Parts: sequence; C-alpha cells; structure tokens
Amino acid sequence: MNFSSKLLENAVNEFSRLPGIGQKTALRLVLHLLNQPAPDVNRFSESLVQLKSKIRYCKDCFNISDNERCEICASRKRDRSIICVVEDTRDVMAIENTNQYQGVYHVLGGLISPMDGIGPADLRIDQLVERIQRGEVQEIILALSATMEGDTTIFYLYKKIKDYGLKVSTIARGIAFGGELEYVDEVTLGRSIVTRIPYERNIA
Amino acid sequence: MNFSSKLLENAVNEFSRLPGIGQKTALRLVLHLLNQPAPDVNRFSESLVQLKSKIRYCKDCFNISDNERCEICASRKRDRSIICVVEDTRDVMAIENTNQYQGVYHVLGGLISPMDGIGPADLRIDQLVERIQRGEVQEIILALSATMEGDTTIFYLYKKIKDYGLKVSTIARGIAFGGELEYVDEVTLGRSIVTRIPYERNIA
Repeated sequence: MNFSSKLLENAVNEFSRLPGIGQKTALRLVLHLLNQPAPDVNRFSESLVQLKSKIRYCKDCFNISDNERCEICASRKRDRSIICVVEDTRDVMAIENTNQYQGVYHVLGGLISPMDGIGPADLRIDQLVERIQRGEVQEIILALSATMEGDTTIFYLYKKIKDYGLKVSTIARGIAFGGELEYVDEVTLGRSIVTRIPYERNIA
Repeated sequence: MNFSSKLLENAVNEFSRLPGIGQKTALRLVLHLLNQPAPDVNRFSESLVQLKSKIRYCKDCFNISDNERCEICASRKRDRSIICVVEDTRDVMAIENTNQYQGVYHVLGGLISPMDGIGPADLRIDQLVERIQRGEVQEIILALSATMEGDTTIFYLYKKIKDYGLKVSTIARGIAFGGELEYVDEVTLGRSIVTRIPYERNIA
C-alpha cells in the first residue's frame, strides 16, 4: 500500500501486527481512531501502556490480576482442594461465566506445542506440582482444548501428577447442546457413545 | 464478561470501541499485546499518539499528509486541471494503486448521510467550490461509492458546481473484471447495457 503519510503508515503497520488484522482492516481502525477526539486516542493508548506496565499475575494460580493474589484465590468461598488447570485467562473467564465451578484455577500460560517451539518448561507445570506437593489439593480437573496440543499437554500433566494419589479428571467431551447428530463429526460422535453417561433427570 | 483485572477490562473496553471489534476479539488482541515485550507495546501505543497529535491535512486536497501539502498536490507531474473527488484517504490510496490517474484529488471527508446526521456542511464541499473558483480546474471526476449516500452526494455536488462550465463525470459503473453475467444483480446489468461503450481494442 502507498501511504500519503509516514505517521499513518507506522500506525497501520503496528495494528496489522495484531493477530487476524490485515493491512486493510488496520487502515480502517487507524482512520477511525484518527476521527476520534484526541483525549479518546490518548486514553486508548494509555490503557495499553498501563496494562503492560502494571499488570500482575496471581502468585498462586498465575491468572491475570491487579493484586498479589487474584480475587478467586483470595476468596473464602472457593474450594482450595480442587484445581482446574486451564490454558489461559480466557478459559478462566469462560468457566467462571458458567457459575458451575467453586474450586480454584491454575493457568498454564499455553499448551505444549513442539511446532511452535513451546515445551513443558515454558508452561507453569512445575508451579502446579509445587501446589500439589503442599498437600491441600485432592482433585485436578484438566480443562484444556480438545486439540492435539491440548491432548499432548493432558498426557504430559497426567504423567507428572499421577503419583500423588489425586483424583484426576478431564472435562466431558461430546455433543454440544443444540447440536444435531447428523452434523456431528465421527470422532466426537463415536467417543460420545463410548463415554456415554447414565441418564439422570436433573442433568439431562 | 467478568474480568479478573480492572486494567485488563479497561484495555478490552477501549479496543471493543473500534468498528467491527467485539469484546471477544478485543480480549484476544489485548492478551496478544500483553504477551509482547514492553518496548513493542509502547511503540504501538506511541504510534497512535504521534499519529493523532502530529498528523496534518493537505491544505489543497485535505488528504492525510505529513506536510502542509501532500505529495500528490506538491508533485510537478500531476495535472492540476483535473480534480477527482473522493470520500476519504482510502479511496485516494485505491485510485493511486491503479496507476491510471495523473490528476489531483479532493477528499470530502465523508458522504452526505442524513441517517448518520452528516449534512453538506460537515464535508469539505465549500473548499472544493473555492478551488474551482480559483479557475485552474477544467474537469471534475466524482469518484464516490455506488450507494444511496454516494448518489445523494454526487447529486448535491453536481448542483453546486454545474454553473462553472466544467466537464463533470462519474466513474464508470458496470460489471467487474472476472464477473460472470448470471451472478450480476439486475440494476448493475441493466445500467451496464444502457451505458454501453463502443468496443476499442486497447481497452477491452
């Protein structure tokens, strides 16, 4: 693209480095910001600098937090004997939104992915083992994505923690609510028959 | 969404004010930025502040520029007797990319759109009339979008400039290159038959 201004080009290039944002979208976003009042643009820009410089990670679960301990780990209502292991903050938010879980979390910060050069040492796996060794934990829920990377990570984690005598579970995989059988892929449908569950009135 | 951090929430809210960016996309972008090194985030943020505070608009054509006059208006190679009227900077870039136009531009800064509260006074129409009154101009090309707002603006502009004895044209509308007749809408196809052009070897 030929830009009429170096400043414009810089801003567009910065935006187009973001995931899923191409040059045309970046230009649209930058021109939108340019049409906003200066205080709005400064506030936008300042919110990012503040985020990067002041953000902290909970020292227990490594979730993004404003304090030393996140609200979930600091809460007296949460059950510290169950740890739900997730990939990142977005998964914590998704599970919290269900209002179905009262335990605490452990944020790995990624999944094992040799293709992307992410090995076990890049994740917060040792910290999880440390938490288990402290003795309070009784159950681990591995709530990772149903992908190759997710399964690899689950396998690795299971080997690491299987000797501590904990209950280890993964979240249920199967047909989503509202899903029609004929459109479900074979692997999911096959596994959902193999891992069928007894019919209970209050769940089904 | 329930955010574990106020800083994170602020940044996500700022991002989700951008056009076409919802809360989930905003969160993805913010978490991506959070994983980048601090100097990168600062550079991103600084590029926006610089853009907003230092950007200028060409005093002739109102295109975005780093100087008092944009490169196109300042160039000796461009034909100042033809003005191509466009909606915004993106259209200038699109036309420049074709390498088919050697005249200068006039950036309106929008289209007349009563629904969005944009009237003729909000656009740079008076400035266009002033340029015409200076006497150098011989032809006006109205290169506006083929929408209701575009047509309204063309109609309004034509009334304003018709008494100056200029050649006034709009860009050709018809079937795009690679377009198959059977998939073209009736209005476009109908108009492209009515406004048919003589066959010339070097264009067709």
